[in-house]
Amino acid sequence: MTGEEMHALVERLYPICRSITGDGVRRTLEIIGEHLPLTVTEVPTGTEVLDWTVPKEWNIRDAYVKDPSGRRVIDFRESNLHVVGYSVPVSGTYTLEELRPRLHTLPDQPDLVPYRTGYYAETWGFCLSQNTLDGLGDGPYEVLIDSTLAEGSLTVAEHVVPGRLPDEVVISCHVCHPSLANDNLAGVAVAVALAGALAGRLEEPRHTYRFLFMPGTIGAITWLALNRERVHLVAAGLTLACAGDRGALTYKRSRRGDAEIDRAVTHVLRGRPHRVLDFSPYGYDERQFCSPGFDLPFGGLTRTPYAGYPEYHTSGDNPGFVAPEAMEDTLDALVQVVEVLEGNRTYLNLSPYGEPQLGRRGLYGALGGRSDTKQAQMAMLWVLNLSDGEHSLLDIARRSELPFAAVEGAAQALLEAGLVKEKA
Amino acid sequence: MTGEEMHALVERLYPICRSITGDGVRRTLEIIGEHLPLTVTEVPTGTEVLDWTVPKEWNIRDAYVKDPSGRRVIDFRESNLHVVGYSVPVSGTYTLEELRPRLHTLPDQPDLVPYRTGYYAETWGFCLSQNTLDGLGDGPYEVLIDSTLAEGSLTVAEHVVPGRLPDEVVISCHVCHPSLANDNLAGVAVAVALAGALAGRLEEPRHTYRFLFMPGTIGAITWLALNRERVHLVAAGLTLACAGDRGALTYKRSRRGDAEIDRAVTHVLRGRPHRVLDFSPYGYDERQFCSPGFDLPFGGLTRTPYAGYPEYHTSGDNPGFVAPEAMEDTLDALVQVVEVLEGNRTYLNLSPYGEPQLGRRGLYGALGGRSDTKQAQMAMLWVLNLSDGEHSLLDIARRSELPFAAVEGAAQALLEAGLVKEKA
Amino acid sequence: MTGEEMHALVERLYPICRSITGDGVRRTLEIIGEHLPLTVTEVPTGTEVLDWTVPKEWNIRDAYVKDPSGRRVIDFRESNLHVVGYSVPVSGTYTLEELRPRLHTLPDQPDLVPYRTGYYAETWGFCLSQNTLDGLGDGPYEVLIDSTLAEGSLTVAEHVVPGRLPDEVVISCHVCHPSLANDNLAGVAVAVALAGALAGRLEEPRHTYRFLFMPGTIGAITWLALNRERVHLVAAGLTLACAGDRGALTYKRSRRGDAEIDRAVTHVLRGRPHRVLDFSPYGYDERQFCSPGFDLPFGGLTRTPYAGYPEYHTSGDNPGFVAPEAMEDTLDALVQVVEVLEGNRTYLNLSPYGEPQLGRRGLYGALGGRSDTKQAQMAMLWVLNLSDGEHSLLDIARRSELPFAAVEGAAQALLEAGLVKEKA
Repeated sequence: MTGEEMHALVERLYPICRSITGDGVRRTLEIIGEHLPLTVTEVPTGTEVLDWTVPKEWNIRDAYVKDPSGRRVIDFRESNLHVVGYSVPVSGTYTLEELRPRLHTLPDQPDLVPYRTGYYAETWGFCLSQNTLDGLGDGPYEVLIDSTLAEGSLTVAEHVVPGRLPDEVVISCHVCHPSLANDNLAGVAVAVALAGALAGRLEEPRHTYRFLFMPGTIGAITWLALNRERVHLVAAGLTLACAGDRGALTYKRSRRGDAEIDRAVTHVLRGRPHRVLDFSPYGYDERQFCSPGFDLPFGGLTRTPYAGYPEYHTSGDNPGFVAPEAMEDTLDALVQVVEVLEGNRTYLNLSPYGEPQLGRRGLYGALGGRSDTKQAQMAMLWVLNLSDGEHSLLDIARRSELPFAAVEGAAQALLEAGLVKEKA
Repeated sequence: MTGEEMHALVERLYPICRSITGDGVRRTLEIIGEHLPLTVTEVPTGTEVLDWTVPKEWNIRDAYVKDPSGRRVIDFRESNLHVVGYSVPVSGTYTLEELRPRLHTLPDQPDLVPYRTGYYAETWGFCLSQNTLDGLGDGPYEVLIDSTLAEGSLTVAEHVVPGRLPDEVVISCHVCHPSLANDNLAGVAVAVALAGALAGRLEEPRHTYRFLFMPGTIGAITWLALNRERVHLVAAGLTLACAGDRGALTYKRSRRGDAEIDRAVTHVLRGRPHRVLDFSPYGYDERQFCSPGFDLPFGGLTRTPYAGYPEYHTSGDNPGFVAPEAMEDTLDALVQVVEVLEGNRTYLNLSPYGEPQLGRRGLYGALGGRSDTKQAQMAMLWVLNLSDGEHSLLDIARRSELPFAAVEGAAQALLEAGLVKEKA
Repeated sequence: MTGEEMHALVERLYPICRSITGDGVRRTLEIIGEHLPLTVTEVPTGTEVLDWTVPKEWNIRDAYVKDPSGRRVIDFRESNLHVVGYSVPVSGTYTLEELRPRLHTLPDQPDLVPYRTGYYAETWGFCLSQNTLDGLGDGPYEVLIDSTLAEGSLTVAEHVVPGRLPDEVVISCHVCHPSLANDNLAGVAVAVALAGALAGRLEEPRHTYRFLFMPGTIGAITWLALNRERVHLVAAGLTLACAGDRGALTYKRSRRGDAEIDRAVTHVLRGRPHRVLDFSPYGYDERQFCSPGFDLPFGGLTRTPYAGYPEYHTSGDNPGFVAPEAMEDTLDALVQVVEVLEGNRTYLNLSPYGEPQLGRRGLYGALGGRSDTKQAQMAMLWVLNLSDGEHSLLDIARRSELPFAAVEGAAQALLEAGLVKEKA
């Protein structure tokens, strides 16, 4: 998928009113399913999942605040951000004074509509721009929220690319946000493109790749509850969010701090503008995956991180905020991360006493004395020197500051020459 | 005690002629004893203490150098710094040339009188300003030192604030310096104020707090000799000196380098101008407490450190050099250190798989989507995430860069909600 | 040896045509042997050494390219760099076009002749300046290489300074480069001077010192093959190369990274302009000594490192590029490294509870209160504090940032006072 194709997917998904449950998520998964086969699981309201309980399902058809003239001054049909997520049904007449505690604005960003939710609060409310609020008269206003909060289910979806090994690399995207483009339709689009890239690989991958599309927090909690007995198979994981803004890539380390995924992503990012953050128990679903009972090797990849841009969780996070080339860059980094995870092995130098004579095996330039040694030769020397059973190819790439592909290529050449073997 | 009250104590103690033994120390302890109950121990001359022997007791009544006109050109009654500490008795007539080897000045600070001692040297001498020396004629001079060096005892004093646990936090101040205000009457005054603050706490402390007022080196050696069998109870210690100058607080790490006291003090100092120094075997009595046989977790707290200001060990270190607000700042930091040591515990997250649902326990804001998460919520998430039995609250405060009090409060809330328990 | 004497040795060795085998190496060793007794080993062609085989011996008597007028436009007699090392014998007539693939120049450094070899390639060629090449007509040219490539042997030489202990400090210099002064005649000259300094020491050294003069790569491989059963005796090693240019000293760490040699050299270099590089499997024979099967504690000492100066491996690396004072500085650093290795011991403080009373043992100034404590006293306090069996004198010097000699002197004084003993 090109950046433009990913952007088209963002635009298509953008208008849907998603929440942590409901038909908006299902419709989103249907569209994702046009690109990827998905296994969709519905978990009924009331199911106990870890310390939580699957909540009632929320659906909404319409909502508005009409002024005395009958004009919709706040209109769900214009933007689903206007309704506080999980608002209970409402129908009545209110003065502005009565409505005020229910109206959420951003006084410092008076043009923008905030995104607010009240999943577990049995409340209701509207979000609007400060400018709109400032223009409202005393009322009275006719208020409608045509929503349903009822027994139903929570929906999680998975796409699996089977590999030769049972251990899994997990990419997790939250799909619970309504009309917010970077957070997280861009993440969804990049994940779809990455799954496509995996499908297009010449050979079956070594690891199994699992893509999770599910609501934030309760979705991850639910998935972890359902998979509690098999999460030990997770060899590496990433939450993918905010994948399309124009900021630099940002990697947030796993709780472990130096897991293979941490070393792989930071090595891949080396050559690009980027930031690396230490783990903190806030942000996206790495919170759940890295809770101390699970402590899975899950990092987080974003461009500008969680809450790090003014458009975050506002109507400013629209498709125009997301750039095709930024999504391409995120995808490219992820593809490289996959290649590192696929190629990372530990070898044993079978000729560890002195350097083996590479020249007679055709692995070394014939003419000596030159000072411009080639990267391929340096990579071979590094692989030979560090293949003592203690260093993986990724370790060697990091230590030598050579690209992983060069190190992997050198190892392949040495393997073919019988100079190294894979460590059992 | 306010800064002004501490300063008044410094001024009251300032004129007394202290040394490593003698009535000056006893008088100093009497005055301290007006604020705190003290247990005073007299250790007789000749007692063997570790590698040392308690020396003879030194007392002095008068000393002078009179010029041919009978004028006291050097006069002990003006400042006790004028006599080299532990000077033997002298009475005689000397020319300036004969006296010169006995006269100590600071040529680079010609207005100031140096502080010199000769505890184990059986010598005598006078200290004076270079300016005074330059004004002296050839003499002859009548010289008197009316001192006694005789069998007696060395005096150490302790104030104990009992706690629920037998393990001890020790604050040690040297009281052997004569008229020097910052070194160490300011330390004494801050220690007195800290003991007062502990007495004023609502609840009995968890740790036992022991304040030591004793002469430097030989006092610490003596105390260690007397307490050799129980020093393993010392859980944390600080030497407190130079606590009142206008420089920034300086913490010198214990020999261990990363003891709880090191982590507590450096965490508390985080928010203030400060310096942290690695351990070195010089300075104050941390030299003794951190000798390799004991290796106690003792750090050193000063403002400008040992020998770090021009007034150090000169007549310039007078009460005017000490600032009430500096002593208040030192005290405030110490009170915070005490609160960290008191509150530092290790908890176990009882709901470690995923985050527990804080919202239904009233521990989390009802409305989602906001980006300005509160410190209290962040602190709860950090405590939950790191309470795996390997991290104390202090570790969590340091890792999260949150104030210790916020972390402790979060742990308390989680404890009350049954989400954590204290690690056995 | 003075810097001038070392430089004279470089000038004397410079004209000899050395390679990895042959009479040039033997003549070089004869001249070194005028300064030091050498044990010379000849290893026959065909001998299997680790993964390698000792090659045929190469000797050359003359070589030229004559233009149609009979003038030698490229002349081995002018500089042995003009012939590619290990060129097979040639005699024939060639046009410039035919010759071109055999002619090596440095287009970016048109005045300089490069150094090239083809040890294992059975090839031939000439090196010349780009300017010379640009002036050549179409030919035809009469070409002669009067060389021999035949059964023979490879020559390695050792000089041993016996010590009281069997463990060895190895200094290794490659002697295979023809007319290149800094690389490595300067290294050879400094090694000869260091061996002389060791011979001139008052007492027999503690360690055994072994100097290796041998061709690069194949020489080290051969020596390692011959000494495989005894290399565990190598306690510290250095390859010494590029020891005479005007750049700062550069230390390249051993593969282990923190071996005693690494700590010794970096401590000695502390006071001089210098650089420290991490190990990489490229450069000089540390490549072989630090191969993973051996993993010997070998660092590399140079001034400007391998391939780090424009004159590297060109005719610009002539005796004028090497400075007597630079070689003296390299020698001085090495002598200090030897003194650290000789003096480095671990002591046990026999009076570890509190400080011992140094004053009554005459080890401490009698007059107290001064702030300008002497280095000798600080060194004693550091040795006492850290002599817990875990820290060597080198560790203490590094930790205290005191010169090693001061720390060693303090330990000696404490040993004589019965306050420390050497750890068994």
